[in-house]
Amino acid sequence: MTRVRLDVAYDGTDFSGWAAQPERRTVAGVLCAALDRLLGPGAATGLTVAGRTDAGVHATGQVCHVDLPDDAWERLAPTLVRRLAALLPADARVTTAAAVPADFDARFSATFRRYEYRVTDVPYGALPLARHDTLAWPRPLDLAALNAAAEGLLGEHDFAAYCKRKENATTIRAISRLDWRRDPDGILVATVQADAFCQAMVRSLVGAMLAAGDGRRPVDWPAALLTRRERSSEVTVAPAHGLTLVAVGYPADPVEYARRAELTRRLRG
Amino acid sequence: MTRVRLDVAYDGTDFSGWAAQPERRTVAGVLCAALDRLLGPGAATGLTVAGRTDAGVHATGQVCHVDLPDDAWERLAPTLVRRLAALLPADARVTTAAAVPADFDARFSATFRRYEYRVTDVPYGALPLARHDTLAWPRPLDLAALNAAAEGLLGEHDFAAYCKRKENATTIRAISRLDWRRDPDGILVATVQADAFCQAMVRSLVGAMLAAGDGRRPVDWPAALLTRRERSSEVTVAPAHGLTLVAVGYPADPVEYARRAELTRRLRG
Repeated sequence: MTRVRLDVAYDGTDFSGWAAQPERRTVAGVLCAALDRLLGPGAATGLTVAGRTDAGVHATGQVCHVDLPDDAWERLAPTLVRRLAALLPADARVTTAAAVPADFDARFSATFRRYEYRVTDVPYGALPLARHDTLAWPRPLDLAALNAAAEGLLGEHDFAAYCKRKENATTIRAISRLDWRRDPDGILVATVQADAFCQAMVRSLVGAMLAAGDGRRPVDWPAALLTRRERSSEVTVAPAHGLTLVAVGYPADPVEYARRAELTRRLRG
Repeated sequence: MTRVRLDVAYDGTDFSGWAAQPERRTVAGVLCAALDRLLGPGAATGLTVAGRTDAGVHATGQVCHVDLPDDAWERLAPTLVRRLAALLPADARVTTAAAVPADFDARFSATFRRYEYRVTDVPYGALPLARHDTLAWPRPLDLAALNAAAEGLLGEHDFAAYCKRKENATTIRAISRLDWRRDPDGILVATVQADAFCQAMVRSLVGAMLAAGDGRRPVDWPAALLTRRERSSEVTVAPAHGLTLVAVGYPADPVEYARRAELTRRLRG
């Protein structure tokens, strides 16, 4: 078998998230169906993804891996991306396909996940061509307040207040980047990068920062919640459609793939 | 009555173009319906648009004007944009509403229309979140060839080869800007600006330049067609969904509105 890294982009609007579910249209579902049609049913095995995005969340830089029979990979490598584009629906695309060492694990070898959250505060709401991936906020937002709120969340903390509690799972995460910018078109974009996130964590962080950004909460309120030991009901989870997974990081040196995976498995189980 | 300039943005995907037509969903149709609900049926009169875009064509900078009863304008001016956003469907938005001199004519006072055409030549086609306003081209495109083809079309010419013939209407137009760039995301963007365009002219020009850009035609072929006295069947009209009306220009000095309108009426009838 050859391990193949697939970089994937999708418009999450009409997907019930990444993970395959019976009777639901999911990204993993349409990707597996396309691979089955190309290679024969079940020939591609072990599809594993870096970020199991929720329903409605988009991706421009999702990463997954899959194991293909060696002869199938050799035959298809030069045309795989183009063939998959012909088989996939228009709202999902494989942008690159590359053979990687068997040690590469899209989920466990990842060193970071980076998301962007887009929100607009103009009185007319989201521009029509941007409405699928931009939240319309009904009140003016202050960029400086958003960034002040973001600063207090940077670094390693127990994000229990921002996480759905899971039995025996740690809620300690390390946020290596969290900042807001206003693009030339006026849209506010948050960039959030961490080693990993628990479920709905990015959208909970964004929800708390928006409350500070529009003046309903003080700018140090999102950081103050870090003392809580469980999910805070005061935090509104921001809607899924503003969120896009833009990048997943891996060790530059492939010899690190296995070591990193070992470390992640120990930390997150 | 107060003349009001409305700047309008729309995702053309689900519209049968700008102009109101019975039984069809059009931008003018949904805009008139929203104005009727806000002001009472028929209170807003004389809706006139700068660019009557075709079915499927988008706009970020469309301009129209409408006449409103003075008292309605005075009452609604501060909240008109927000109220219209609540009444319009998500694929159409009025981004600004401003009182203008009665001489202002969105169509006849305009000094230029500027369009952008977006096309991608990557093997996987359009990225999912860009697919509504970006054409996927199946062959690699050469930026230098596209720009060489564009250069030959600049200036004032008889664009009969690129126009649907209309009885007694001139096909002479002045293209003041025509160039291609490759954006950081890899998408090729043509910017086309002229005093005015005849129907499907921008998409015909793009179709001819794409034939030069992918090597099927020499780069001087689009300009060579300018000697033709009627529409050329060799030119493929590029699909509507890559095209966006991004700006309409007007004289800086309002005293020019009437003079410009007079001039345009004489030239174009």
